[in-house]
Parts: sequence; structure tokens; C-alpha cells
Amino acid sequence: MHTFFHPNSVVVIGASNSPFNLGATICRALNEFSSWSGAVYAVNRKAETVHGCQGYASVTDIPQEVDLAVIITPAAVVPQFVEQCAAKGIKHVIIESSGFSEGGEQGRAMQRRIDEIARAHGMRIMGPNCLGVLNTRNQFCCFYGIQAEDFHTFANESGGVSYIIQSGGIVVIVLESFTTDVVKANKIVSIGNKSDIDESDVLEYFNRDESTEVIGMYLENIKDGRKFIETARRVSKPILVFKVGRTGEGARAAMSHTAGMANNDYIFDKACTQAGVIRVNSISELHAMPKIFTHMPPLKGKRIAVFTNSGAFGGITADLLVQAGLEMARLSPATQEKLSRTGQIFNVKNPIDLGPALSMQTFLEIFDILLSSDEVDGLLPVPSLWHPMVIDAIVELVKKCHAYGKPAAIYTPNAVHKTVSYRQKYQVPLFESPEEAVRALEVSYRQHRYAEMKDALQNLAGAGQQEEHLIAQGTL
Amino acid sequence: MHTFFHPNSVVVIGASNSPFNLGATICRALNEFSSWSGAVYAVNRKAETVHGCQGYASVTDIPQEVDLAVIITPAAVVPQFVEQCAAKGIKHVIIESSGFSEGGEQGRAMQRRIDEIARAHGMRIMGPNCLGVLNTRNQFCCFYGIQAEDFHTFANESGGVSYIIQSGGIVVIVLESFTTDVVKANKIVSIGNKSDIDESDVLEYFNRDESTEVIGMYLENIKDGRKFIETARRVSKPILVFKVGRTGEGARAAMSHTAGMANNDYIFDKACTQAGVIRVNSISELHAMPKIFTHMPPLKGKRIAVFTNSGAFGGITADLLVQAGLEMARLSPATQEKLSRTGQIFNVKNPIDLGPALSMQTFLEIFDILLSSDEVDGLLPVPSLWHPMVIDAIVELVKKCHAYGKPAAIYTPNAVHKTVSYRQKYQVPLFESPEEAVRALEVSYRQHRYAEMKDALQNLAGAGQQEEHLIAQGTL
Repeated sequence: MHTFFHPNSVVVIGASNSPFNLGATICRALNEFSSWSGAVYAVNRKAETVHGCQGYASVTDIPQEVDLAVIITPAAVVPQFVEQCAAKGIKHVIIESSGFSEGGEQGRAMQRRIDEIARAHGMRIMGPNCLGVLNTRNQFCCFYGIQAEDFHTFANESGGVSYIIQSGGIVVIVLESFTTDVVKANKIVSIGNKSDIDESDVLEYFNRDESTEVIGMYLENIKDGRKFIETARRVSKPILVFKVGRTGEGARAAMSHTAGMANNDYIFDKACTQAGVIRVNSISELHAMPKIFTHMPPLKGKRIAVFTNSGAFGGITADLLVQAGLEMARLSPATQEKLSRTGQIFNVKNPIDLGPALSMQTFLEIFDILLSSDEVDGLLPVPSLWHPMVIDAIVELVKKCHAYGKPAAIYTPNAVHKTVSYRQKYQVPLFESPEEAVRALEVSYRQHRYAEMKDALQNLAGAGQQEEHLIAQGTL
Repeated sequence: MHTFFHPNSVVVIGASNSPFNLGATICRALNEFSSWSGAVYAVNRKAETVHGCQGYASVTDIPQEVDLAVIITPAAVVPQFVEQCAAKGIKHVIIESSGFSEGGEQGRAMQRRIDEIARAHGMRIMGPNCLGVLNTRNQFCCFYGIQAEDFHTFANESGGVSYIIQSGGIVVIVLESFTTDVVKANKIVSIGNKSDIDESDVLEYFNRDESTEVIGMYLENIKDGRKFIETARRVSKPILVFKVGRTGEGARAAMSHTAGMANNDYIFDKACTQAGVIRVNSISELHAMPKIFTHMPPLKGKRIAVFTNSGAFGGITADLLVQAGLEMARLSPATQEKLSRTGQIFNVKNPIDLGPALSMQTFLEIFDILLSSDEVDGLLPVPSLWHPMVIDAIVELVKKCHAYGKPAAIYTPNAVHKTVSYRQKYQVPLFESPEEAVRALEVSYRQHRYAEMKDALQNLAGAGQQEEHLIAQGTL
């Protein structure tokens, strides 16, 4: 698996100088946009050099050793190129062409042919019908069609979130959204039809990958449910998964896209719970949630203290917290008394209504009182950005959260464009809606519970039965 | 009610030149920021002039006639100023001060005292504990604390959406969000504790108000459920309401904020259905949904055609549509055949996968085929903004929707900041997530059904019984 993300040399099969050639865009990205320093070769009928990549008429004509092949030709000729790769001794192949099992019986027959060649020669295949790999750490990227501007936007900053994404369109949204967020991508892989490498293989790899802190997945189907559950149970990092096909119509649409068998959604849901996988409800959660893991300590209990200078959000967040299975922290008279002494606070009961007249000092004191209280497991601050002091206080809050080991899911009740611009400028993990902030606390708490459960399972010999026992007990 | 939005003269009681005086910010906004041309007077102990507004020690000292009083003094002295207003013959009073029924027994006693004076003199009271009124049509605004920049952002553009909002913080989010949206505010009223004027009074007024097309409400409680239902039934415009207090914790928090009785949420929900009121699920829906009414024809049936150049969104939107109670349109072989002839389309079944290689001409042909088809009631286009041509096609699509009388809820699968900037630049009604777009179709369809229902009720003599009959039939 490592070679897919760290090849020393690559051949792009199907790259030529014809107009609108997609392979050429891969050569261009690797040779012109990227700081990745490996060798790139092109294979095309005329053996022409493409964007500075030496051209050959056949893979076997390349004199040097090649680690990885990227195939982006019409589907009909893919099998013969896979054979050339086998003859050349290439063990890693990414097939980006479409027209296989998602495109009818003829396509399925070709996919079977490819699988046979790969098995016979011990090759690993990614795809077909995929975008391949982006590794922001070394800027290796074999996405087709990428423009210079997008390449630099997507690959110039590196973070801790790695994704397994079945569809190219979702890759774009996630990467675009990260440009204004505090989290950044680490590695992204688009696995398409999954004829060989599937979500579980990549999951296993990301679990061992040191620079991956959080794993996100967009799936249209699961190839092997049992393998997925067993793999996910070994993963200690948070796994967020969005799966399409909750309804029959959705499953039908997904099938026409990446050709998977429709999975029973109810069973998938159960499998996620048993495997300690957090199921998210939208694409935006897939890129908005990771920052609660990368930028905050885990939420270890359910009791949340809300404070706001916009009274309405006390009620709104209280509703959301209860609906998410969390609790409004009950503040003791002693804690309320401490809060009263910090300044002119409208309401010292949770939700705490700060009122408008607040100094930086008062903010800091409130943070200390709440974070140090054993009545509170985490914070949901809703401070409106009405004064420059407020964002300075938020910056301090983030530091204090780490010091006290308790998270805050911060929502600033302003228009999204304003929140986003402050988040980018001050690099603080702001959420874009109260719903998102509450959801972040929910997934943080869930992950904490899953981690405890996985630890418990690992400490048991012959986990099988005890595990069922834990499930039956309702611990999971 | 008209006078609250169109006064010729106003007195701001409690406006002075003391530092941090909130009344002074109202004088400043009216006299310095606003193009509203009425007279403004200030009442304060020293009778000092404030931001150019002539000062008096008492309301009764003002020689000219005064239409409207805005009171923003400590709660304890509010009753005596209400008495001065009565003596001066002022019939319209907005009390922005807090510390009344939301603040304990003493506050409640003061509120009762004010109510008595008002009743005795035929005065109408808005508030207490509110922000008052913003009318973007004449730039009359009595919000306190508003800065020059915000004033111009909020009041310089006028649109068709009027709001009844119980909390100032929500006013800010809605207005800030409108700065990047195609919809704009018309009139906004923050009614606070509702000692006299309540949501139903304003609803009635907005229904008659010609420049109001859509009505939005943020409520922490309903003052009079029966009045609300009866009023809402008479309203022909779409009413969107977000109500806090779905849970016990939320209701408790709301009560500490604006002092209303907690309403049973289940009953409120039923009441909304019977009154033809659309209940929304978040603050963001409150400002994101109106554009489906102001910028698109109504959705008159459930059958939606989805088309996208990012295959994943076929499945995602199909799931969402089904969950929203809408349907994926079934395209006949004839329609599929027409779509095939427009160009190289990956999948002509709904969801239609356009594939990447698409010309403007192909886009336009697809729009015509789908909008003219009697198999389709509305569109859910999900075109990625990967090429400038795409936004040009969207501009044309909006025109065609009006020509065919069918709506499109358009979502561009890009990061929110990109979608928002295109929406602002091209003034097209783009939604920010697939969830939002589907929800817009759902509320459009629901409003269409409510309008039919309200028409039917109006056509019945002695509607009472028949109405119950319609409800029993499940028509509502």
C-alpha cells in the first residue's frame, strides 16, 4: 500500500499530446505543479513526450524500473496495458478509466480479466473508475484534470485528516472546504469500483500511517462487511463515514455510479456501531467534524456548559444538546456564585447569558471557572463576534481547553461568511452553525466511548464472546 | 401597527450623552446613518441634545406632536415614562429596556403596571426587552447599539422578506447572512416579552403589507395559540417559523430569556400544520429558505429530476428527496431518448449524470427537455462550478424556470465560500448544501399545498366543520 502514496517512479499510460487528453493533465501536475521529485513516463501510440515526461509506445519499452502505473485509456484497451505492466514487473496499478462494472456486462467481463492478470502476477489494483491518490506530504498526486491553482490550493498545506472517497466530486468539496478551515488533508484516495483494493485495505494503511490522525470515508457501498468491521475494530483513530444509499432510490443511484452492490442500510448502521465507526449525516460533516479531534481534547462525559452573549442561543443549543443525547451541566450554587463575581452576567445558570458588557478578563475567568469545575465535561460557547476582543478571548479559550483537557465546540452566531473568515484568520476551530457545534461534541463523546470499548476488547483474550456480551449489555 | 414602521416623529427616552448610553446609539442611527427624514427628540435628565436630536427633560415638554416613543431606560423608571407618553398623547411605544417579566416578580409587577396605563389610554406597546423595528423601505430603525457599517449593510438594500424575531441576536445573523444572498429583508421586528403586541398582530400586519412576500418568525413561545392559528390561516403568504423549546431544557432556557410560558412542542407542531405554517429546523433555514419563494415559481407536485456532473450527488440527493417525502421523477424512454441526443451524457435515467464534457448548448437543451416534460414537477440541479460556462448556464436556468413555471433548487457542489461568492456575484438563488436545496423543494411544495388548503377553506361557508373534515381526511 505504501508504494501507492510514495512511488519513486510512475508511468502514465494513455497520456498524449492530443487535445483534452486527461493523462496529460496528470503528467503536467506531477512534472510542473508538484514538488514531488520522482520520475514520470508517458505511454502512448506515438511514443511522444508529454509535459516533459519521456514517452514510450509500450510500458515494456521503458528502460528504468517503474514503481507505479496509472492507466487512463479507453476501457477496452486497459486489460492489454495491465498485461504490459505485469510483463514490466510493476506491482502497483491505478486504473482511472471508467466503463467497467458500472457500465454493463461487457465492462464487468473486462474487469474480471484484469483481476485475473493481477492475481496471477501478484499485482495490486486501485480502481477502476477512480481518481487515485493525493498525498499532501510529498505532493504525489495522480488526480486527472487538476489545474495549477487547484493543485496548489489542495496540496500546499498538509494536515492530519486522511480520506477514503469513492467519488471524485466529493474530493473536490472536501479539499475546497479545507482552504478556509483549520484542518487540512493528509492523504486522499479515491478507490472507485474497488475491483481489488477496498476501503478496508486503505483503512488498515491509514491506521498505521503516523501522520494520519482522523480518517474520513465517503462510501457508496461496502465491499466486504465482515472485513470492514474487523479492520475498523483494530483502528484506534476516529473514523467518520458518510454512506449514500439510505433509501432505495439513493442505493439505485449509487449503483449506477460506482457499481457496488446495494447494502442494507440498517445492517450497515449496526455494523458501524459494532465496529466503532462514527456515521455522519452529510458531506459537510465529513469535513467539518475532524477539527474537534485535531484541535480539541476529547469529550469524556455528557455534561455541557453553554454560554452566550445572545440569549436566544441558550435555548437553541439546549434543545440541540438534549436531542444529541448530551446533557446541560447543572451548576452548583458555589459555581454560580463564582460566575456572579466575574462581572455583570445576566444569568449564571446554564445556559449562561453573558449579556453584552463583557471584558476580556471576565471571559478568561469564566473559562477557568467552567473548565476547572467537576460539574462540567465540555463547553459550548456561543459568543457573537461583535467586538475584536471576542476573537482574542476565543484564541485564549482554545489554549485553556488543552490545558484543562476538556473540549469546547465554539459557534459564533454570525453569518457563515464572517465566521469562516475569522476561523481562517485566527486559526481557531469555529463551527459554522449551532447544529454543527453540538454534533461535534456528540461525535467527540462517541469516539471517546468507542476508544474505551476498543481498549476493553483488546484487553480480553478470545474477544469474540465477551464482545457480544458488551454489545448485549448496551455498552456499545 | 403602521405607525411603528412609518412614524413621522420619534422620541428616544433615555438617550443622553453619557458614555455607553444605548439610547444615544438610536439617535445616532436615525439622525446620522439613516435616510429616514422624520424628527427625533431625546429625553434625559439634563434635557441635553444627543447626536443633533433636541433634548427635553420630560416627554410632555416636547412642543411638537410625537408619533412614537422608544424607551430605553432602567426598568424601574419605565412606568413613569409610559405615563408621560400617555399624557403627551403618544399612542405607540416601544420599550427596549429589559428587567421585566423575564427578571422575576418585581419585573412582572412593573410590566403589569405598564399594561394598565397602556390599556387606560388606548396605547399600543411593543416589548419590553426588545430591539424594536427596522424598516428597510424608509430606513426607519430603532435598534440600539447599531454601528454605521452594520446600519448600511442591513438597511441599504430592500427585499421581500419580513421577520418577527423575538431575539436581537437572531436579527443580526439573519441580516448578516442576507449580505451575501439574493434575498433581502423588508421589515424586521423584535417583539421581546410581548406584553401587548404579539406575533399574531405583526403577522396580520405583514399579510396586508404589500412589500412583504415571505414572513419569517423566530419564537421562544406563542402568546395566544388560538389567535396565532386563526391569524395564520388568513395569511396567504408563506410563513416560516423556527421555535425554540423542543425539549424541556430548551424551553427552560428560552423562558429565562424572554419570559414566555413554555408551550407544549407537540401541540405547537400540530397547530402549525393546521394553520398552514411551515416549521423550519434551524436559524439558517430561516434565512436560506425564503429565496425559493422570492426567486422561483412554486413546486406543484412531488416529482423531481436531479442532474449533476458529480455522480455522487445523484445518490446523495435521491436519499434526501425520498426522506423529504418527495419523489424521483420517472423519465419515460421518450424523454431519456431526447436527453441522449443532447450530447455525451453518462446516464439519462434520473438522477441524470451529465459527465464532465458539457457545452452550454447541451445544458440549455437539458433544461428545456426536463422543464417541458409532464413527468417532472421541479428540478434539483447539482452542477459543479468547474468552468465559467456553468454559472452562465445557471443564470439561463433561472430564467427558464420562470418561463416554464417550475422551480429549481440549485446546489453547486463546491465549498460554501465559493458557492456564496458566486451567488452574490451572479444573483442566482444557490443553496449552500444538498440538504438545504432539498429542504427548499420540500417547503415550496408544502406551501403550495397549504395555499390550496387555505383557498378551499375560504370557499367554504361556515368553514369550521368542513375544516375539521379536511384535517380528518388528511388533506392538511
